Amino acid sequence: MIITMKKSTPQSEIEKLTREFEDKGFSICLIQGTDYNVFGIIGDTTSIDERMLNGNAYVDNVTRIAAPYKKANRLFHPEDTVVDVNGIKIGGQEKIVVIGGPCSVEGEEPLLEIAKGVKEAGGAMLRGGAYKPRTSPYAFQGLGTPGLQYMCKARELYGLPVVSELMSEDKIDEFEEYVDVVQIGARNMQNFSLLKAVGKMTKPVLLKRGLANTIEEWIMSAEYIMAGGNENVIFCERGIRTFEKYTRNTLDLSVIPIIKERTHLPIIIDPSHATGNWKYVESMSLAAIAAGADGLIIEVHNCPEKAWSDGAQSLKVERFQSVIEKGRKIAHVIGRDM
Amino acid sequence: MIITMKKSTPQSEIEKLTREFEDKGFSICLIQGTDYNVFGIIGDTTSIDERMLNGNAYVDNVTRIAAPYKKANRLFHPEDTVVDVNGIKIGGQEKIVVIGGPCSVEGEEPLLEIAKGVKEAGGAMLRGGAYKPRTSPYAFQGLGTPGLQYMCKARELYGLPVVSELMSEDKIDEFEEYVDVVQIGARNMQNFSLLKAVGKMTKPVLLKRGLANTIEEWIMSAEYIMAGGNENVIFCERGIRTFEKYTRNTLDLSVIPIIKERTHLPIIIDPSHATGNWKYVESMSLAAIAAGADGLIIEVHNCPEKAWSDGAQSLKVERFQSVIEKGRKIAHVIGRDM
Amino acid sequence: MIITMKKSTPQSEIEKLTREFEDKGFSICLIQGTDYNVFGIIGDTTSIDERMLNGNAYVDNVTRIAAPYKKANRLFHPEDTVVDVNGIKIGGQEKIVVIGGPCSVEGEEPLLEIAKGVKEAGGAMLRGGAYKPRTSPYAFQGLGTPGLQYMCKARELYGLPVVSELMSEDKIDEFEEYVDVVQIGARNMQNFSLLKAVGKMTKPVLLKRGLANTIEEWIMSAEYIMAGGNENVIFCERGIRTFEKYTRNTLDLSVIPIIKERTHLPIIIDPSHATGNWKYVESMSLAAIAAGADGLIIEVHNCPEKAWSDGAQSLKVERFQSVIEKGRKIAHVIGRDM
Amino acid sequence: MIITMKKSTPQSEIEKLTREFEDKGFSICLIQGTDYNVFGIIGDTTSIDERMLNGNAYVDNVTRIAAPYKKANRLFHPEDTVVDVNGIKIGGQEKIVVIGGPCSVEGEEPLLEIAKGVKEAGGAMLRGGAYKPRTSPYAFQGLGTPGLQYMCKARELYGLPVVSELMSEDKIDEFEEYVDVVQIGARNMQNFSLLKAVGKMTKPVLLKRGLANTIEEWIMSAEYIMAGGNENVIFCERGIRTFEKYTRNTLDLSVIPIIKERTHLPIIIDPSHATGNWKYVESMSLAAIAAGADGLIIEVHNCPEKAWSDGAQSLKVERFQSVIEKGRKIAHVIGRDM
Repeated sequence: MIITMKKSTPQSEIEKLTREFEDKGFSICLIQGTDYNVFGIIGDTTSIDERMLNGNAYVDNVTRIAAPYKKANRLFHPEDTVVDVNGIKIGGQEKIVVIGGPCSVEGEEPLLEIAKGVKEAGGAMLRGGAYKPRTSPYAFQGLGTPGLQYMCKARELYGLPVVSELMSEDKIDEFEEYVDVVQIGARNMQNFSLLKAVGKMTKPVLLKRGLANTIEEWIMSAEYIMAGGNENVIFCERGIRTFEKYTRNTLDLSVIPIIKERTHLPIIIDPSHATGNWKYVESMSLAAIAAGADGLIIEVHNCPEKAWSDGAQSLKVERFQSVIEKGRKIAHVIGRDM
Repeated sequence: MIITMKKSTPQSEIEKLTREFEDKGFSICLIQGTDYNVFGIIGDTTSIDERMLNGNAYVDNVTRIAAPYKKANRLFHPEDTVVDVNGIKIGGQEKIVVIGGPCSVEGEEPLLEIAKGVKEAGGAMLRGGAYKPRTSPYAFQGLGTPGLQYMCKARELYGLPVVSELMSEDKIDEFEEYVDVVQIGARNMQNFSLLKAVGKMTKPVLLKRGLANTIEEWIMSAEYIMAGGNENVIFCERGIRTFEKYTRNTLDLSVIPIIKERTHLPIIIDPSHATGNWKYVESMSLAAIAAGADGLIIEVHNCPEKAWSDGAQSLKVERFQSVIEKGRKIAHVIGRDM
Repeated sequence: MIITMKKSTPQSEIEKLTREFEDKGFSICLIQGTDYNVFGIIGDTTSIDERMLNGNAYVDNVTRIAAPYKKANRLFHPEDTVVDVNGIKIGGQEKIVVIGGPCSVEGEEPLLEIAKGVKEAGGAMLRGGAYKPRTSPYAFQGLGTPGLQYMCKARELYGLPVVSELMSEDKIDEFEEYVDVVQIGARNMQNFSLLKAVGKMTKPVLLKRGLANTIEEWIMSAEYIMAGGNENVIFCERGIRTFEKYTRNTLDLSVIPIIKERTHLPIIIDPSHATGNWKYVESMSLAAIAAGADGLIIEVHNCPEKAWSDGAQSLKVERFQSVIEKGRKIAHVIGRDM
Repeated sequence: MIITMKKSTPQSEIEKLTREFEDKGFSICLIQGTDYNVFGIIGDTTSIDERMLNGNAYVDNVTRIAAPYKKANRLFHPEDTVVDVNGIKIGGQEKIVVIGGPCSVEGEEPLLEIAKGVKEAGGAMLRGGAYKPRTSPYAFQGLGTPGLQYMCKARELYGLPVVSELMSEDKIDEFEEYVDVVQIGARNMQNFSLLKAVGKMTKPVLLKRGLANTIEEWIMSAEYIMAGGNENVIFCERGIRTFEKYTRNTLDLSVIPIIKERTHLPIIIDPSHATGNWKYVESMSLAAIAAGADGLIIEVHNCPEKAWSDGAQSLKVERFQSVIEKGRKIAHVIGRDM
């Protein structure tokens, strides 16, 4: 960590700060620059809060050199983490995993029909929301517990592990019982109470990137879950918020090489929420595979124009199958299977 | 609501859609444009989900004409809402309210010392976090219940109502008991489970704008709380996330006239989190008052360089007092008191 | 175009506005909504300025239905435009074109060495800046005319058409003489004087997307060039500015299907400027090809650590060759060559 | 400047880099950290290009400690610069200057009428565009030279110095002849050819902030002009581009204290372009004055609903006068006049 202090800082203040850090077990290296005094703080600085240092009126700037995350950091864990979901493996050089399903579970029959399509098309897991984060209180909020039970029924019939979004700590027992992967949605990426609670769960966590969160903040949210004891975290990019209006969000595929460079955890891509438009899902799916993603999560609906939420971005089953077939060929080119 | 359909849409599809809306009680007006067919849907469209309509492959675009919020909408509630917090009034043409206090409660003694300073400087309420949303799991997470109890002690001694952030539904009883205003933080602005829970509380809610949320989404989050039965919502702008690096966030003061135009609810400004730098707090506070804000919430600390969080943006008591004194003069110019 | 007027608008005002549009040859359709009056304006609305209509105090909102561009619009020109650069074709189902070369031309010898490498690796064209847009006036500003002449020398020796950035109208004659493709940089995307001047040139134009420009604004800038008479415009995405700090910019690959849907012009991707980091160039290049890009423009340097600008994002020749080899395999999977 | 190198960097590489900097006259200080080697480079680093250093594969990160600007830097020029425009002074503790006028000059008569209104209301200078940067090539592009001549006529009649936007180097002679302040628009803030040309002019320059430019980039653009010899630069904030849709741009008033802290140049605010809506202009004007702005530039039109551009954001003269009257009272509170 580098601390820049104003040239006018009194010597006594410099000595005081130096002593404080030394007392905490850090080594200090002072550089007397032209217009500033610069300190290097040597040691494990993850516990130092840079905004606290900025409270000192003589401090001009604080720059962190080492990453603020440890458990997620590839520097200390060089080999890839492979997450196991009922035998389906995500990460490393494993098969690229495709998760398909509706935005919301709308009933038993339609869900089973979609699940059948997902299975036949080559999907590996089933997604479906039983609790839905909706901008409007007047919009459909999800079926709740019955929605999760229909997901279990679909798993039973088609052998697809199920993924669903957890929105509240008080549903944790239910999610432990029913789902195979617990999704934390973009809007809850920094709901730290929920992250801590999920850190105690036994199920793998699909951690979506927040609307406007940096990659570093995203890794820090994974660190919360891992620090709680649950090391099975799967990152999921779903687009970030920008000024652009032709897409719902801006899909940031550069996260793929970055997450793989900085962490050892798997990363999958959600082209449906990212673009908000089914017409762009295929090309973004193929791009994600070419860039090295460990999986895709795609909205599939048998009748998008009747979907209760996000029909605009759902693929029909035939198109979902076509994405998988084309994607598989690209996977082979880069030395993976799908 | 305006629906634009492709020129190539078959007549049967147009008729089907028309019938569907008419069956739900809406009136339809069709415009045959040069390159598109455009429908106007007339009636209360708040319950229509535009993303569902976009699932129809013939639909090119859906535009909402009427705002998607009702209870917060000034159109249906022209007079200002004034929120009463233990006799202190926020909103309308009432006195501008200044809330001061530390980012985190760090102990009984330091809190009482700060509270005394806030009171003497002319502050009307006390802020202080007992549960802290921190990006890092290794950073100080707040004192919890004792923190709230110290706040109550301060209220008792200095007569300042207290504001503190609620991060989790399972603390709701505690907050009902201890605090006077429940703060929902920026990172939880779209934690819809929490919003619903807070909608059942009897205490007023200070609703911070999310890092990257539009004003419309922010009003919709207030609508969640109001739809739950709690109509005492106070908006709080605390800066949005942009590309700029010299400030922690970008303070968007234009929300003041916009919130007042579109809703009947009060709005206050947090210049501390917005700028992240105590040096800019005074000028942004004065600007907020001049622009018509109903209040300010400012971080105050007796020893910012020792603050356990966000020392960088905290004012010492003397400077806090100076902000209030200058602010009061501006308040008088625009016909209010402070 | 849809105009929403306040319910309180006097009848006389509605009639006046209606008459004005009818006098200009438009048809009008009025929808009397619950809380608003909504007009549809039917006809070619590209010449109507919506911000002028907003000047009317009774107007609540103006929404454009038809796109504001004509010449670039695929609706009126369904077949793909293929741009011919000295026999190399860009667009349609033609071979994917790879452009390589240094950020800045640094001298004759180093340029020729890089050009040789680009040619041998399979590059189709050579890039190199002779005039450089630099944030700092104290940074290297480019070699100017000699830089362009070295580019010509390289073309002569290796048969690679050359691309270079034009920053000022007064260099247009020079660019007509020396270069094969005129690049308009991100910072000049809305330098309308320059766009108009380039619209009179005979050389194809590579139009980079601005730092924070919407896709619609980008297409409008192409429309400027085309309206001037030069229809050979190639779009180039180079990342947009967001809050993310781990990359220089955020590469928005969703522009590929969008530009192809809305326009008939070719689009290429610049992964070097987008990520700002050579380590991410390969994965983003492969992603761009998989998503359907018509080409890539990649920074190549024989000694990136000595590059006078942007060494951080330049590939060495061997790695550039590896990108082309892997990319070609992906191109084959999606039915193209490279 | 701080350079962080990977722990694995060979000793020979560290020595080579050290020698290179020492040969250029810098002092070096090396910190051997836990996971990195960190260098401090001591001396005037404005000429070092950090992106060049990043080209070295062993370099992990480069952080600039000292600001990259010199002439604009308050560190080296502590007293305020006051720009003199035909006797009207901008900056320091001088009277706050209000510039009013139409977005575009639309003809002699309407301009003179507006100028009369601006003068009578208490405006100090007249704005008006003769060359207009328009997103669409089909929109009104400005009257050109006659527009400037009408501005001169207005100056003659009402004694108001005139401000107009320069879009192209080839109009520089015309602007030297006709205008009193040369405006560089947001879209040309990084048109470096134009900045260099303006650096040779004798007239003061109003430098608008770019749509998505950081404050540092903005100061660097001022540095371009100053490095060319023209030290009379006035910053003008006009809102930045964000995700928010209820305003045209997001007005960033925190630039006022920041520009004053880091530079010695004056700063004025454009609330009209920032908000895009005349209804928000008054409150943002008052906020800007309270925050310490040296001036305002406001769009004024005698008939906004007939304005050829940006009627939506123009004030009628009476309202402009009301802004000045209220603003003056706030100016008095903070110890200035207006």
